[in-house]
Amino acid sequence: MSAIFTITTHDPQCRARTGIVRTAHGLVHTPVFMPVGTRATVKSLSPDEVRNHGAEIILGNTYHLYLQPGHDLIARRGGLHRFMAWDGPILTDSGGFQVFSLVYGGIADEVKGRRPTLPSAHPDMVKVTEDAVIFRSYIDGSRHVFTPERSIEAQHALGADIIVCFDELPPFRAGYDYTAQSMTRTHRWAERCLTFHQARNPALLPNAEQYLFGIVHGGVFPDLRRQSAEFIAELPFDGLCIGGSLGGDKRQMYDVVDMTTPHLPEGLPRHLLGVGDVDDLLEGVARGIDMFDCVSPTRLGRHGAALVRDRERGWKLNVSNAALREDDGPLQEGCSCSVCRMFSRAYIHYLFRAKELLGIRLVSLHNVAFLLNLMADVRASITAGRFADLYREWLGKDLAV
Amino acid sequence: MSAIFTITTHDPQCRARTGIVRTAHGLVHTPVFMPVGTRATVKSLSPDEVRNHGAEIILGNTYHLYLQPGHDLIARRGGLHRFMAWDGPILTDSGGFQVFSLVYGGIADEVKGRRPTLPSAHPDMVKVTEDAVIFRSYIDGSRHVFTPERSIEAQHALGADIIVCFDELPPFRAGYDYTAQSMTRTHRWAERCLTFHQARNPALLPNAEQYLFGIVHGGVFPDLRRQSAEFIAELPFDGLCIGGSLGGDKRQMYDVVDMTTPHLPEGLPRHLLGVGDVDDLLEGVARGIDMFDCVSPTRLGRHGAALVRDRERGWKLNVSNAALREDDGPLQEGCSCSVCRMFSRAYIHYLFRAKELLGIRLVSLHNVAFLLNLMADVRASITAGRFADLYREWLGKDLAV
Repeated sequence: MSAIFTITTHDPQCRARTGIVRTAHGLVHTPVFMPVGTRATVKSLSPDEVRNHGAEIILGNTYHLYLQPGHDLIARRGGLHRFMAWDGPILTDSGGFQVFSLVYGGIADEVKGRRPTLPSAHPDMVKVTEDAVIFRSYIDGSRHVFTPERSIEAQHALGADIIVCFDELPPFRAGYDYTAQSMTRTHRWAERCLTFHQARNPALLPNAEQYLFGIVHGGVFPDLRRQSAEFIAELPFDGLCIGGSLGGDKRQMYDVVDMTTPHLPEGLPRHLLGVGDVDDLLEGVARGIDMFDCVSPTRLGRHGAALVRDRERGWKLNVSNAALREDDGPLQEGCSCSVCRMFSRAYIHYLFRAKELLGIRLVSLHNVAFLLNLMADVRASITAGRFADLYREWLGKDLAV
Repeated sequence: MSAIFTITTHDPQCRARTGIVRTAHGLVHTPVFMPVGTRATVKSLSPDEVRNHGAEIILGNTYHLYLQPGHDLIARRGGLHRFMAWDGPILTDSGGFQVFSLVYGGIADEVKGRRPTLPSAHPDMVKVTEDAVIFRSYIDGSRHVFTPERSIEAQHALGADIIVCFDELPPFRAGYDYTAQSMTRTHRWAERCLTFHQARNPALLPNAEQYLFGIVHGGVFPDLRRQSAEFIAELPFDGLCIGGSLGGDKRQMYDVVDMTTPHLPEGLPRHLLGVGDVDDLLEGVARGIDMFDCVSPTRLGRHGAALVRDRERGWKLNVSNAALREDDGPLQEGCSCSVCRMFSRAYIHYLFRAKELLGIRLVSLHNVAFLLNLMADVRASITAGRFADLYREWLGKDLAV
């Protein structure tokens, strides 16, 4: 059992549960959505705005911070919390996802059917060996060598409350053989991460109390997912991530979660990496996921797409749409966020048309608040034994997991 | 005497005074600096941030709002206060400055010695007649006709608490004859603005209580400034602006103020249009100016220049400077703004290097707060009879007006 996690409620109709994650920087109530502060900032938002709209934990990206301004520089500033003035819990990823997604293409590329490739096709950008990943910086083209130990060392320097094992992320279309081979290497890397982490001297680090999460791979293959879940669960991790390829569409992603969570130990918190669409959050919770992160609320915000309760339109409202020109309503009727309490659709429409930066801020903040409020409702519904009702209200169908 | 203005203190050593301007949206304590919200937003900042950092009044630009989204649309939304969610006092300018500065070049161009030209040189962009100014939109090239009545009508629709007469802004190098001819036309336009304003039906407007300020012209010529001050002072305006060309350098600007304020009625508030450098604020106050506005704090913020107490470096710190890379101090030691209380120079330096939007926000907010705090200190010093000391502390020389 994890020292950091207590389960407080189980939903009787599905695998949903509520819990509390305890960290040196405060409590996290699960299921939780964590806004992503890729480069030590939740894009366009201030830490107090993010906190005041209900965020209990944010995610930082080790890969970006390693390259700029450098994890050592952040350590000399007292760690990531102090550097970015966020005093709540932080989770950093391992850097693996970014190193590989720059080459293979991200999940978005896969869903759109673009052809992903294997690392051997990009000898200039990335090379994977048993020991390390060699890659080039997207900033200045400089050459970098990342090992499992190097990833954990960087995460020690950043000082997040939860850190994650370094992994390879093969694309969904990589096929069974490559996925199996990559998975076993990621398992060996997990052991190296754990060894390196256990040998640290906490007194020399910005945050003496860091928890290490393992990461389950195996792509879309049930036997590999089970094998990986069982292997990782045997190691003394404080929590588990579901990583690797989640498939080519949402249905396949839910299947991957379905084939994985039953093999995870009940008492550890489970993080589904990089997922944050409204339907994915609800489907993930129903399948026993406790933690989610995604850049989507701020990315959508920069492109003028506001999250709204409109399943038919993919939960999105294009604020530049001419229909909003004289619409005095809020982005989302009934939303309690500061944006919806103060500003009209007409004003936000105008800000985007006029290319004013405040427009990006307002839509980003609303989007972050929208997902945080959804997750607060999710937690309350599980506690009250009516998660199935909430699921039906949002998704218009019965819960069937 | 103005119904809206009460003088509360006179400084015995110069023409500085403190006062209170009363508007339907609240009090303004003078001398005041008003952040500029050109296009219904103080660029990158939210109205509550601007308010919480001490702004009592902001300025909106009629020219920009007339073109986009249109003053009628804003009136249908309930006026500019409601549209942009700023419930404090607002001053709108007449649009004259923007119409002409697009053609003649702004004050910055003059100081840098670029050759300004007369309107006849730009027949495509702007044409001035006795009745009107015909100009093309910077957004879509469409043709627009602005008259004094049209400017006031637009300002009625926007609903600012203080509105300003429409004027022509001839360049400093226009010479005596053109400046005199333009001034007398601006005087005739002032009478037309007043007539149109007095004939309004306040019940039909978003803000029933709007005050109209006259505008004094005459370029850099003492006899014209005196003539204009006396002409405008005879009309029943609620306050006065010093507009037109303020010369080719700061020394000449102070001379223009010196040759103007002695001819203005004591009891009306005086606004020096478009001025907001630290030294200009102190020199203006010493010469009897009550109100200032300038885009500089947010413009500097977007370019990564933070306002600091460093006269030798023009009150500016370039946050992208490599020397700040590991500087854990605030932008300005001792500054009480939320940016200086929370964030280090190292973090802000990093945000600019990484091109993160939050960097623009933080430096813009600090800069706005810096000038608002300076003006609060100016008011307190006048009230306490020690403005000359404050002047010496900041400018390193004795007050001699």
